[in-house]
Amino acid sequence: MALVKKPVTGMKDILPAEMQLRDYCIGVIKKTYGEFGFTSIETPAVESLANLNSKQGGENEKLIFKVMKRGEKLNLAEAKEENDLTDSGLRYDLTVPLVRFYANHAGELPSPFKALQMGNVWRADRPQKGRYRQFMQCDIDILGEASNLAEIELILATTTTLGRLGFKDFKIRINDRRILKAMAAYSSFPEEEYDNVFITLDKMDKIGIEGVSEELVGAGFAQESVDKYLDLFKAAEGKDSLEGLKVIADKIGDFLDADTREGLAEIISSVESTKTAQFEMVFDPTLVRGMSYYTGTIFEVAMPQYGGSCGGGGRYDKMVGKFLGQDTPACGFSIGFERIIMIMMDEGFKIPGADQKKAFLIEKGIAGDRLAEIIKEAQEERAKGSQVLVVRMNKNKKFQKQQLSDQGYEDFKEFYLNPLS
Amino acid sequence: MALVKKPVTGMKDILPAEMQLRDYCIGVIKKTYGEFGFTSIETPAVESLANLNSKQGGENEKLIFKVMKRGEKLNLAEAKEENDLTDSGLRYDLTVPLVRFYANHAGELPSPFKALQMGNVWRADRPQKGRYRQFMQCDIDILGEASNLAEIELILATTTTLGRLGFKDFKIRINDRRILKAMAAYSSFPEEEYDNVFITLDKMDKIGIEGVSEELVGAGFAQESVDKYLDLFKAAEGKDSLEGLKVIADKIGDFLDADTREGLAEIISSVESTKTAQFEMVFDPTLVRGMSYYTGTIFEVAMPQYGGSCGGGGRYDKMVGKFLGQDTPACGFSIGFERIIMIMMDEGFKIPGADQKKAFLIEKGIAGDRLAEIIKEAQEERAKGSQVLVVRMNKNKKFQKQQLSDQGYEDFKEFYLNPLS
Repeated sequence: MALVKKPVTGMKDILPAEMQLRDYCIGVIKKTYGEFGFTSIETPAVESLANLNSKQGGENEKLIFKVMKRGEKLNLAEAKEENDLTDSGLRYDLTVPLVRFYANHAGELPSPFKALQMGNVWRADRPQKGRYRQFMQCDIDILGEASNLAEIELILATTTTLGRLGFKDFKIRINDRRILKAMAAYSSFPEEEYDNVFITLDKMDKIGIEGVSEELVGAGFAQESVDKYLDLFKAAEGKDSLEGLKVIADKIGDFLDADTREGLAEIISSVESTKTAQFEMVFDPTLVRGMSYYTGTIFEVAMPQYGGSCGGGGRYDKMVGKFLGQDTPACGFSIGFERIIMIMMDEGFKIPGADQKKAFLIEKGIAGDRLAEIIKEAQEERAKGSQVLVVRMNKNKKFQKQQLSDQGYEDFKEFYLNPLS
Repeated sequence: MALVKKPVTGMKDILPAEMQLRDYCIGVIKKTYGEFGFTSIETPAVESLANLNSKQGGENEKLIFKVMKRGEKLNLAEAKEENDLTDSGLRYDLTVPLVRFYANHAGELPSPFKALQMGNVWRADRPQKGRYRQFMQCDIDILGEASNLAEIELILATTTTLGRLGFKDFKIRINDRRILKAMAAYSSFPEEEYDNVFITLDKMDKIGIEGVSEELVGAGFAQESVDKYLDLFKAAEGKDSLEGLKVIADKIGDFLDADTREGLAEIISSVESTKTAQFEMVFDPTLVRGMSYYTGTIFEVAMPQYGGSCGGGGRYDKMVGKFLGQDTPACGFSIGFERIIMIMMDEGFKIPGADQKKAFLIEKGIAGDRLAEIIKEAQEERAKGSQVLVVRMNKNKKFQKQQLSDQGYEDFKEFYLNPLS
């Protein structure tokens, strides 16, 4: 077979300039989350198909890269179904593995358990610009904390991290699945249709309140329900977050329990009064988020200047129970790592301290003691923390120096066989 | 299907204590290699089978986890051979992907190109204690540098890194495939049998010179060749590195070219005179290293106190040519990352600065402004660089504090609903 130079379809090589930025961001993220008491964990890239297909992954379950069984040579002739050939696959997210991890190690882990995961996931999505079949996810999760201290800490940790990476003037949109449901119940939508109502509501950004109204009525929902529903959003429009929440909660009354309402208000005000980054908490009753496993609060990082979300998360109190057999409160926040890297690259982000780069160019033929002397000088600079590249001088020295400049080397020192030449 | 709590066969979850050490080591490794001008790159976990089966991977090619093709539903009934179902697999090392990467991007990369790769690889080895089917490799490579400056920099960078991780009194064993061959030629072994001679030579550590002699004679090699061969090793025994090299080189004379001999001596003396870690360069004519792709210098980190090798590498000048169609000198050094982590865990390595950990325990019921005040205090500590965990107080506070102590929290602050209680 001929050798192949390109990466496999839909996956990409990461070149030094991007890697340098990624490593820098990974460093800031790990350090900041560490300060908030999150501890790193890692799970294998390969998970059993039983777990990957457990209905927690939504649409992602259709995008699994399956790994062929090993062992005795696979007998294709006798294979009746895919299960005869495969029982594991590459993980499509870090949530299913986290929950399996927690179920496997619950006895050894502190409670609450604050986990940080940074790792690649794989999805056989149709390849398209800026979307790859292997990409990094960056999740923090708190397992075992039922109170909204979990949400407050997740949002503070994530926004502090974004702030340290230079992001500002963004918004954290926040809502609660229980408010979404209470609003739908108050408007007398049939319970089995809630998810369909939310799918339309999720388009508010794009099609506006009139568009939502048309789509709901078009789908056959009662005009009265639709009007009652949309009046809630109109009532809150233009109000600040706590005021908007109060207006809606007052209207829907007993459909919403007081704890949910007060809990959400407390998250918003606690974060606002203790945040360190420049951003705003925004109660947004139109926020839906797709995954069906969310049971309470949901939130999203909105960066309007970059057109969209740069991360999100929420509370999923029922999922751990499916593995562990015992419900465990859980809440997580995922940074859109690849999106953030793309934005920082586009904006020409300058990595702090990346400019201390020296290059020693050594003429061909320099050897023995003289070479050792030059290397010793480089070693002394490195011991002081400088980055020193030691390379042989190419024939085309000008081109070589240009290449090195492109990599950020500013400070050149040249060594010749005859020091006077 | 029932959910599965365990990781897939042969792979492991990494718990917080180990991850903390891994993250620390990754940080030291990236920083140190950075100072030597190595730049990080990353390639996808999945590679085409054409590349993985290109005969560069040796025995590892038998251990590939194959990934099933995606797209139209696989037609098992019509599948005649494995190639109908799979054309890619998980990488088993970082060398094949590096060479593909270099072939793909040669025009965009500086020359020489100094690459650092830290990433997982997968091998379907029989599961056994301490060996996993997913593990991290940590490789540095210099592509495009023909002179022994490459070897000198690789060895200095790796030993500086090991030194910073607390390793000392280790040895870098060094040899050259061309010396191995010259010694075999001088002893009149048939050229097509060199590899078999080396396989026996490689056992010198275990079976001693008499054992090697018996095995070679037993395999049918001429007694005269075997005696002549082993006399070389005896002549060098007990001598220091440069002297040992000289003795052997003088004996084999024209079978070895002067450049190889002088080049190796220069590597040994340059590293000795510029090293920063506590280790010794040892010329070891019995060093073989298995991979057939090596063309020149070979080296290995020996830590006798831990029984064996903690990394190794060498020059492989012909491999890039197989992808690129044009030979490119190449030399690499791989740290045995998993082995190093295991040793550091066993030795109870203390991570510097990991002791600034505070925990705020908040009684249930504290909410609103009071909660915000406490979080603000935590935020102020974090802004000063401290790690502050904010958690609800459990019913069994003593057990909770014990758990936190186990995680390294020393400094507790407790907050009660009634501050006087």
